[in-house]
Amino acid sequence: MAGNCELNRDVCQLKELVRSQGKQLGRLVRHMKMGCKKPPRESTLKGLNPCLRCLQPDVLYHLGMDTGSMNFPKIFGDVRFVCMGGTPERMERFAHMIMKELSLKLHPATKLRNMAEDGHRFALYKVGPVLCASHGMGGPSISILLHELLKMMHHAKCQDPVFIRIGTCGGIGLEPGTVAITSEALDGMLRPYHETIVQGKVVQHSSKLDQCLTQELLSLADPCEDEFDTVVGKTVCTNDFYEGQTRLDGAFCDYTNPSKSAYLQGLLGQGVINFDMESTAFAALTSRAGVRSAVVSITIINRMEGDQVLASRDRLSEWEKRPQELVARYIRKAMLGQDEDSDTDEQEDVPPCAEADI
Amino acid sequence: MAGNCELNRDVCQLKELVRSQGKQLGRLVRHMKMGCKKPPRESTLKGLNPCLRCLQPDVLYHLGMDTGSMNFPKIFGDVRFVCMGGTPERMERFAHMIMKELSLKLHPATKLRNMAEDGHRFALYKVGPVLCASHGMGGPSISILLHELLKMMHHAKCQDPVFIRIGTCGGIGLEPGTVAITSEALDGMLRPYHETIVQGKVVQHSSKLDQCLTQELLSLADPCEDEFDTVVGKTVCTNDFYEGQTRLDGAFCDYTNPSKSAYLQGLLGQGVINFDMESTAFAALTSRAGVRSAVVSITIINRMEGDQVLASRDRLSEWEKRPQELVARYIRKAMLGQDEDSDTDEQEDVPPCAEADI
Repeated sequence: MAGNCELNRDVCQLKELVRSQGKQLGRLVRHMKMGCKKPPRESTLKGLNPCLRCLQPDVLYHLGMDTGSMNFPKIFGDVRFVCMGGTPERMERFAHMIMKELSLKLHPATKLRNMAEDGHRFALYKVGPVLCASHGMGGPSISILLHELLKMMHHAKCQDPVFIRIGTCGGIGLEPGTVAITSEALDGMLRPYHETIVQGKVVQHSSKLDQCLTQELLSLADPCEDEFDTVVGKTVCTNDFYEGQTRLDGAFCDYTNPSKSAYLQGLLGQGVINFDMESTAFAALTSRAGVRSAVVSITIINRMEGDQVLASRDRLSEWEKRPQELVARYIRKAMLGQDEDSDTDEQEDVPPCAEADI
Repeated sequence: MAGNCELNRDVCQLKELVRSQGKQLGRLVRHMKMGCKKPPRESTLKGLNPCLRCLQPDVLYHLGMDTGSMNFPKIFGDVRFVCMGGTPERMERFAHMIMKELSLKLHPATKLRNMAEDGHRFALYKVGPVLCASHGMGGPSISILLHELLKMMHHAKCQDPVFIRIGTCGGIGLEPGTVAITSEALDGMLRPYHETIVQGKVVQHSSKLDQCLTQELLSLADPCEDEFDTVVGKTVCTNDFYEGQTRLDGAFCDYTNPSKSAYLQGLLGQGVINFDMESTAFAALTSRAGVRSAVVSITIINRMEGDQVLASRDRLSEWEKRPQELVARYIRKAMLGQDEDSDTDEQEDVPPCAEADI
C-alpha cells in the first residue's frame, strides 16, 4: 500500500512536470510563430455557457459586480488561485496570511476591501494572484458563488486558475484539529455525484476532484515538523448539518444512538474520513469547467465521540490556520516555480506583485 | 371564485377568533383552578428531539450561543415572532422598522447588537417580542438556522411563536416589485416536500404552510392604498439559482431558450408565481415543530421577461420594504390584539416593551 502511494505520488509529480514543460514548449512555439504579436487570449475554462458572450453587460448579482462598470481582464486577469471557505472573517484572515506569505504589501494608506460588499451575500478579497471568497453554508450557496466566479474567470480571461475550498468539517475517527484532504466527494447516498433538478428533471454531475492536486497538497504536509496530522480520504457531503450528519442534538431526531454508531462505523469502513456540506457541488461545478480543484478541511470534532462542537473559540482559531498553512505552502511553491521559469516565459503576463497590484 | 375566496377568508378569521377565545378560556379555567400559583411552563413546540433535555449545556454552534452561559427563558422567553430573510443588512433594517412600528426605543447609550456575531454565520437581532434573523442562501443554510432557532424557542419556553420568511425571489408572470405570498412550497419536481437524506435513506417531510396565516397576511394588503400588488400562489424552491431556475445566464447552460419558455409557461399554468431557494426547508422544519409559518417575498425580476437582475440598488431597497411592511402590519395587529385582551389575560406574561426590554 505504502509503495503504491509513493508510486502514485511520483506519477502525479511527473505528470505535473510534463504538463508544465508542455505549456512552456507551447508558449515558445507560439512566440516563434507569432513574433512579438500576442495572440488574443481567452480564459482556459471549458464547457461554459455559450450565451455568455451575448451578455453585455453580465451582471454577477450576488457578487454585486458587472462587466459593464468593471474591467474584468485588468482587475482579475492575473488570478491563478481561488480559495474559498465558509465565513467572511476566516477568508479575510486567510487573505492577510497569503499577503504575508507572498511578501505583498498594502500601501499604508489602504486596506483590503471586500470587493463583493455591494452584493451583501459573500466576501471577496484579492491579494495579488489569489482570490479569497466566503461561500456561506451548503451546496446551493456555494453553487451561486461558483457560477459567478467561473463567469468572472471567463470574462477576465484567466489562465488555468486552481480552485481550493478551505473548510471546516466533522471528522470521522480523526483527532479534532486534523487536516483532511478530500480524495472523493460523495453525496448522502455515497454516490460520487452532485445531483440537481433542471427543468423538472434530475441531473447528475460527477463530483471528481483533481487527484494530482490532492497528492501535491498532501506532499506539502510535513509529518516531522507540523503540529498536526494531514490525511486523505472520502468526504460525505450532506444537505443538513443535524439529521443529515446523523447528529443526536438537532431540533429533531427520529433515530437512535445505536443506529447512529452503526451508520458512522459503516462510513469509516468505506474510507470516509469526514462530513461537509459543500464538496459535491464544489467538485462538480469546477470539474465541469475543466478547472483543477481540491478540498482541504480542518476537523473541528470527532463524530465518533460526539455531536456538539465544544472546542473553545481560541482552539478553533488555532485549528483554522492549519489547512490555510498547507494551501499557503502550495501557492508559495507554485509562485516560486513560476518565478524560476520566468526567464524563458512570458514574464509580462504575470504582473509583478508590487504594492499597487494588491 | 371571488365568493369562495371571501368565504375562505371569513372561515380563517373565524377560526382565528375561536382559537384565540379558546386560549383565553383555557387560561381563565387554569387560573381558577390554580389560583395564583403558576403552572410550570414549557414551550408549545411539538415533536422535538427527546434528547434535548439531556443537553446541558446545549451549544447552538452556528448562533454562537449556549444554554450554559445564557438564560434562554429570560432573554428569549417573550419571543412571539421570528422573522428571517437572506442577508444580515436587510434583517437589521427590518429590526429597526419593527422597533418604530411597535414604538420601542433603545436607550440613547445603546444600539442593536447582532446576538449571533460569535457564530460568524448568521445575524440575529431582537426587538421586544420579535427576532429578526438572516438565513443565508439555500435550504441547507436555512435548515441549520431553523434547527438552532427551534431549539432556542424550546429552551426559552416560548409560547406559540410564529415564523415568517421575508425573502426576495424571481417572479413568474408578475411585475417586479410585487409581494408574493406562498400558498404552497414545492420542490424542483413540483412535489410538496422537503427531501433530505438521513443515514443513507431518502426522507420526505411535508412542506405545508399555515393557510390561515397566509390569508391573514393577504387580508392586510390594501389594494387601494398600497403602491404595490400582493398576490398568493405556489412557490418552486430550487437548490440552484442558475440552472435550477432555468436561467440562460449561468456559467453553464445545457438547454435552449424555447425549452426555458416552455418550462416557465408550464409552471405558470400550474399556479406557480415565483422561485425561491428556502421555502420547502422552511415550511417542513416549522410544520414538523407545530409552528405556524408563512413565506412573504418580493419579486425582484419577472422571469418571463429575463434572467439577469437589472434593477438598481435604490429600486431594490425600495422594494425590500414592501413585504416587511405587510409583516409589520401583521405583528402590530397581533400585538394590539394582545393588548386589548390583556384585562382578562395574564398580563405579566407579556413583558412591557420598555426601553430596557429591547
